[in-house]
Amino acid sequence: MQQELETYFDRLWPICRSVTGNGLRESLHILRELVPMELVEVPTGTTCFDWTVPREWNIRDAWIETPDGRRIAQFKEHNLHIVNYSIPVNAEMDFEELDKHLHTIPELPDAIPYITSYYADRWGFCLTHNEYRDLPRNGTYKVFIDSTLEPGSLTYGEAVLKGSSDREILFSTYVCHPSMANNELSGPLCQAFLYKALSQMENRRYTYRFVFAPETIGVIAYLSQMGTHLMNHLDAGYVLTCCGDPGDFTYKRSKQKTALCDRVAEHALQYSDRRHRVIPFAVGGSDERQYCSPGFNLPVGSIIRSKYQEYKEYHTSLDNKEFISFAAMEETVELLTEMVRILELNECYENTVQFCEPQLGKRGLYPNHVNPTFNREALHNLLHLLSFADGKTDLIDIAEARNRYALVFEEAIASCREKDIIQ
Amino acid sequence: MQQELETYFDRLWPICRSVTGNGLRESLHILRELVPMELVEVPTGTTCFDWTVPREWNIRDAWIETPDGRRIAQFKEHNLHIVNYSIPVNAEMDFEELDKHLHTIPELPDAIPYITSYYADRWGFCLTHNEYRDLPRNGTYKVFIDSTLEPGSLTYGEAVLKGSSDREILFSTYVCHPSMANNELSGPLCQAFLYKALSQMENRRYTYRFVFAPETIGVIAYLSQMGTHLMNHLDAGYVLTCCGDPGDFTYKRSKQKTALCDRVAEHALQYSDRRHRVIPFAVGGSDERQYCSPGFNLPVGSIIRSKYQEYKEYHTSLDNKEFISFAAMEETVELLTEMVRILELNECYENTVQFCEPQLGKRGLYPNHVNPTFNREALHNLLHLLSFADGKTDLIDIAEARNRYALVFEEAIASCREKDIIQ
Amino acid sequence: MQQELETYFDRLWPICRSVTGNGLRESLHILRELVPMELVEVPTGTTCFDWTVPREWNIRDAWIETPDGRRIAQFKEHNLHIVNYSIPVNAEMDFEELDKHLHTIPELPDAIPYITSYYADRWGFCLTHNEYRDLPRNGTYKVFIDSTLEPGSLTYGEAVLKGSSDREILFSTYVCHPSMANNELSGPLCQAFLYKALSQMENRRYTYRFVFAPETIGVIAYLSQMGTHLMNHLDAGYVLTCCGDPGDFTYKRSKQKTALCDRVAEHALQYSDRRHRVIPFAVGGSDERQYCSPGFNLPVGSIIRSKYQEYKEYHTSLDNKEFISFAAMEETVELLTEMVRILELNECYENTVQFCEPQLGKRGLYPNHVNPTFNREALHNLLHLLSFADGKTDLIDIAEARNRYALVFEEAIASCREKDIIQ
Repeated sequence: MQQELETYFDRLWPICRSVTGNGLRESLHILRELVPMELVEVPTGTTCFDWTVPREWNIRDAWIETPDGRRIAQFKEHNLHIVNYSIPVNAEMDFEELDKHLHTIPELPDAIPYITSYYADRWGFCLTHNEYRDLPRNGTYKVFIDSTLEPGSLTYGEAVLKGSSDREILFSTYVCHPSMANNELSGPLCQAFLYKALSQMENRRYTYRFVFAPETIGVIAYLSQMGTHLMNHLDAGYVLTCCGDPGDFTYKRSKQKTALCDRVAEHALQYSDRRHRVIPFAVGGSDERQYCSPGFNLPVGSIIRSKYQEYKEYHTSLDNKEFISFAAMEETVELLTEMVRILELNECYENTVQFCEPQLGKRGLYPNHVNPTFNREALHNLLHLLSFADGKTDLIDIAEARNRYALVFEEAIASCREKDIIQ
Repeated sequence: MQQELETYFDRLWPICRSVTGNGLRESLHILRELVPMELVEVPTGTTCFDWTVPREWNIRDAWIETPDGRRIAQFKEHNLHIVNYSIPVNAEMDFEELDKHLHTIPELPDAIPYITSYYADRWGFCLTHNEYRDLPRNGTYKVFIDSTLEPGSLTYGEAVLKGSSDREILFSTYVCHPSMANNELSGPLCQAFLYKALSQMENRRYTYRFVFAPETIGVIAYLSQMGTHLMNHLDAGYVLTCCGDPGDFTYKRSKQKTALCDRVAEHALQYSDRRHRVIPFAVGGSDERQYCSPGFNLPVGSIIRSKYQEYKEYHTSLDNKEFISFAAMEETVELLTEMVRILELNECYENTVQFCEPQLGKRGLYPNHVNPTFNREALHNLLHLLSFADGKTDLIDIAEARNRYALVFEEAIASCREKDIIQ
Repeated sequence: MQQELETYFDRLWPICRSVTGNGLRESLHILRELVPMELVEVPTGTTCFDWTVPREWNIRDAWIETPDGRRIAQFKEHNLHIVNYSIPVNAEMDFEELDKHLHTIPELPDAIPYITSYYADRWGFCLTHNEYRDLPRNGTYKVFIDSTLEPGSLTYGEAVLKGSSDREILFSTYVCHPSMANNELSGPLCQAFLYKALSQMENRRYTYRFVFAPETIGVIAYLSQMGTHLMNHLDAGYVLTCCGDPGDFTYKRSKQKTALCDRVAEHALQYSDRRHRVIPFAVGGSDERQYCSPGFNLPVGSIIRSKYQEYKEYHTSLDNKEFISFAAMEETVELLTEMVRILELNECYENTVQFCEPQLGKRGLYPNHVNPTFNREALHNLLHLLSFADGKTDLIDIAEARNRYALVFEEAIASCREKDIIQ
């Protein structure tokens, strides 16, 4: 999986994505090779709750020419050089005027910052502080941005894997960031490879829905179409963000705190012994802000590794291929796959022998001798399952009452099903 | 405020208060300069639930004359010398007989104890153990107490500050203790100065009720008249006692444990970083015993600093002006004022944009550039408020979900109200 | 009590008990001298929920004769030498064949293991590993087991101590183990002496039910007859097992976790300052597996000292008289008696003066002087009881709100009853 992850990463990396535009469309088309998603175009000017879809932004080139004739901050060298959604400009000016449009990070003098201005008509350039510091303060600069802001549309993608039930699990990630790696090629890549894994799973009980959309306005547009459906069908959902680096996992709870999404994620992280922490819902975040807004309040948490705003490379050119790890991305996909297995297994089983224990011996499920040396673990998993299978307690609660990982009960569930002693 | 507190303290200090009588009346008249309270006289013999208002007690003078002609334990030197509610006496006796009526504290040989006998007809004197130890054991003592126990009345005072709502907040303190400082001139003084502060507050939502009454029988008499009203209107209440010394704060919970009074007091103490502890409701206490009796079970806690029965000067002549601090009293009034501000602010706000976030940018509430350096705190307070403002969650819960003091949301609430995005 | 416990222990010890048979009957007859129980015979073949009562097993003799003519593993020397429920055998065989039927514990070379095979027709012998190691590997062995497996019945005993209410408390223990001491002569002995103690208690409120039955199948047979009755009447129950050694107490919760049985046992252990631990319900256990099966889910916990499977002597010949202590058994009976006293006392008292405090002085319940030296504890127990006696809160909750043992309120309850201020 890691080799394939890297190939897709390398193809997606150089594209200049934004909340609208051809870079976004091109990226979704590449991801469509992995996920047969339907692409939806939402026209400029469409009202989505309190918001309006903005004009579509496209950019072909941009640079600054210094008084001594050097071209710097070239879009074609790194798309972070241009403030995302910059209006077109073709002008000459002195340094003092230009300086109002320049962005750097003095504390990270080798990093180009990531700056956007979606809803105010501005332009600007982002540079390393080292380059900025050496710019001549006298003479005339030429500034060129070949961009367009025109009526068009916002694009998002959605794919569904049907299960036997119409209850749904949602995975949602954003695809609007230009060349950055953890935030945010890791989300779309992990989600695409999770789709691949689940598409091969047999006898799915749940229906799985995958959303690839621009952050905030994209998910707001999505919810303006699918929000009511999700309110009626969603059992659990996750936003995937910053999940491609080798840092410990962070699970950010839904606003409901103890919804199914929270119980599954926390159970999986704790009982699979993966290093992690759990944090409460907070508005410093991503699209869970929309999913968990008061009107929806959907059961949606976030799967994160090194968290946005907590690692210094965040929202800079240093969030690059060196910062992430394809082994870590594979591990993230594995965790998500385990969570799905738990969701599939997490029913409220009912022992068909409710009064006293079933006699296991006559069904070949009990060792013939009670002697002090036989392996007790598997037998006790089975007895525990039967003892707690009252038709009202789900598997996660049953497993936690025995302080075990839910997935270790797969064998006991299979045995009991075969002997018709649970349903 | 401290200078004014001290002036009132000095005027109230020498008065001999009790659960009835002219000292109590005189003290309430002085407090009336600060709080325009209505004074209520409850006649001797009035039945109040399981109790009966006792005869009124007044005292003019009292002393013991030793066999060698010295006058000791003189009422006019310290009113603690006389057991409160002593019957009149004018007699001669030997030491053995007198000794049955003398009270000292061997462990605190310089302290005069505070002793009462409201409901049994007794008399007695209280002395320092040092003075007692040196009394002649032979010869004849003269004993004189010029007191009266006659039909009269019990006096309490009540003041109300009206708000726009008829839901009420109660502050209650007792005024029946003779010359002691923390227990109990601190309570009436803090409560009077809190009244002054709240009377200047504009646009009060709550109605505030202030009760100055003798402990136990006074509050029982008060509740026999106002108990039903409080059951119908009270949202939160506090007994103020022992709140004038520089010790850490003690908050004693109501019997309900998690009533509004408890949430507000504990939130204020915790998030304002004041040194404090929280203790459960217990019958070792003051008038909360009546407010929280099973039939009423009102939401009433206690604001205390060094707690009664826990400091050695309690109920002795050592609980004097040196033990307390007017700076500490001012700090207590500040805490109470903050608690009132929290109560006033603690509504269940509802974001008018329930589905997805409101677009802050078009209302001038969002910074134009998302860059890594802007101050995130105020913006996140605003977003957090909007995200949790579902019309069902009150501000204290909203604030604690962000681990912030409720009062830091005042600015965000004002901004949102101005832009009509909360109601 | 200890002397009497030892006498009964010594009489019961040598008997070869099993889930059916004459050893079981004989043991119940001896216990009947202490507990006038009714004995119930459940015929072989009776269907009890998912189970069927097996044939009755009786054994008269058994041994192995070695090639050199020694008789070993003799039933008459230790009844653990024979696998419990062994079919009859009278045969010669070489060591290789015999070895399939021999059981030892290499880690405890001096211990004879305890092995059973109730539901598969087998035979076998149990030896110390030391004896096993030295057996000749060549030559012919003679094997003799003089047992019978025939239609008969399973025997259990039940006794009831009536109280004024038809709400019930259950104590249940098992009587099917051959010569072992902690597991399990301690259970029947403690339960029998608890019966003696309770039979002398006057004015019992609860009805107490005592069950002495073979483990698992015996209790399943019992529940097939009395399960519905218990579902309608049981307020709390306890399985007694491994409760005769001087180890710390273990309380194993019911599956309900916070049922009355759990609250009483945990309160008694905590507030009587007995060294103990509390563990959750788990299927590694005894007859609580049946009582707490999902259909019944009765409020039944377990009182244990050194827990089965956790001490190395468990299920071996080393679980003998030296392992246990009659002083420890007496202490177990004392704990159980205290738990019963708590149950009897644990009502929802209601103060007849619901509004404000009752005036204790006029009823002679209050000290005349409030002075700093009188003993506050008894007065505050009384005031606390009255303050919390709202007719809805039971004594355990009242006691824990004051962080006291429920039994210290016996005096206050008696005083209040005498003065008619609680009901």
